[in-house]
Amino acid sequence: MTKRIITISREFGSGGRFIGEEVAKNLGIAYYDKNIIDEIAEQLGLSPDYIQESAELSPKKGLFAYALVGRDITGKSVEDMVYEAQRKVILDLAEKEPCVIIGRNADYILRDRDDVLNVFIHGDMPEKIHRIIGLYNVEAKEAVKMMADTDKRRMTNYNFYTDQKWGKASNYTLCLNSSQLGYDRCEKIIMEC
Amino acid sequence: MTKRIITISREFGSGGRFIGEEVAKNLGIAYYDKNIIDEIAEQLGLSPDYIQESAELSPKKGLFAYALVGRDITGKSVEDMVYEAQRKVILDLAEKEPCVIIGRNADYILRDRDDVLNVFIHGDMPEKIHRIIGLYNVEAKEAVKMMADTDKRRMTNYNFYTDQKWGKASNYTLCLNSSQLGYDRCEKIIMEC
Repeated sequence: MTKRIITISREFGSGGRFIGEEVAKNLGIAYYDKNIIDEIAEQLGLSPDYIQESAELSPKKGLFAYALVGRDITGKSVEDMVYEAQRKVILDLAEKEPCVIIGRNADYILRDRDDVLNVFIHGDMPEKIHRIIGLYNVEAKEAVKMMADTDKRRMTNYNFYTDQKWGKASNYTLCLNSSQLGYDRCEKIIMEC
Repeated sequence: MTKRIITISREFGSGGRFIGEEVAKNLGIAYYDKNIIDEIAEQLGLSPDYIQESAELSPKKGLFAYALVGRDITGKSVEDMVYEAQRKVILDLAEKEPCVIIGRNADYILRDRDDVLNVFIHGDMPEKIHRIIGLYNVEAKEAVKMMADTDKRRMTNYNFYTDQKWGKASNYTLCLNSSQLGYDRCEKIIMEC
């Protein structure tokens, strides 16, 4: 089965987003990341900023927030509603056109399709720290903290909604260490697949 | 840094051993799997059959065997000694020549070298079952049991000796789903890297 959709999950600082953008550009297909958030926001009548805070990087207070957060009369938390909206958007996008989707548990959400290439990009500490320092203009210590914090939230969110383990090889078609392989090589491998 | 050594860890039935053999053949480099076991056996004066039982697939009785197994006066179990011998052989082989090494926690044992490409090969259930049925001439039910059993032992052995999680993407340079990518594509990607 030819792959039409590429999902990219990634460690913070691994360049996964950049690699996904380059792949989409080179293949001439759509690229979705913050765009998805905006689209969800439009559908829900919520501001992109609000969704961005609540969506992928939640919960800010750790795993318990999923249990303790305020729920509406249906028993759904705001975060569940955001996730549900996000899920629908991702299903629609995959149906509509070939595309690259970054993060947002898209690998799991699209698990019933057989035209999806699921990629996980990770990297080595020194290279990730170096990249974060350059991108966010922060000190090394702050970069390490940002990395630990962001990856912890991504992992918590993924594990909670998918009942799978974030970063476990068997969830993905392809896992690449961008520090050892280089961004160009990663892009090339993804495009060949 | 150019990679001289390729280690391949794999799920049972994923074709990882076959892929490794093909890669070694195509690159014209050495291939080590049971050869390692024989070499260890020679060094220790133990028979290959005995080592094979005690080495990678141990412990037969689960994790507790690591704690409860008989120990010599130095506090080392027979399994620890086998592992230590295995480790030395792998370090020597990596020093000696470019090669492909299958299993045996070689990724972890060679972690201090920067010329090693660590690969993990996994696959989807139906394809793995199909392969095991063909290779071992067993029924599907037996194939599933063999797979669960072997992977559990590999995982237990790996997690015990490396303090890492078997099959976690970040331990490897490259993780490939051989069912989705096909054996040829896997070989091609490994050789390019």
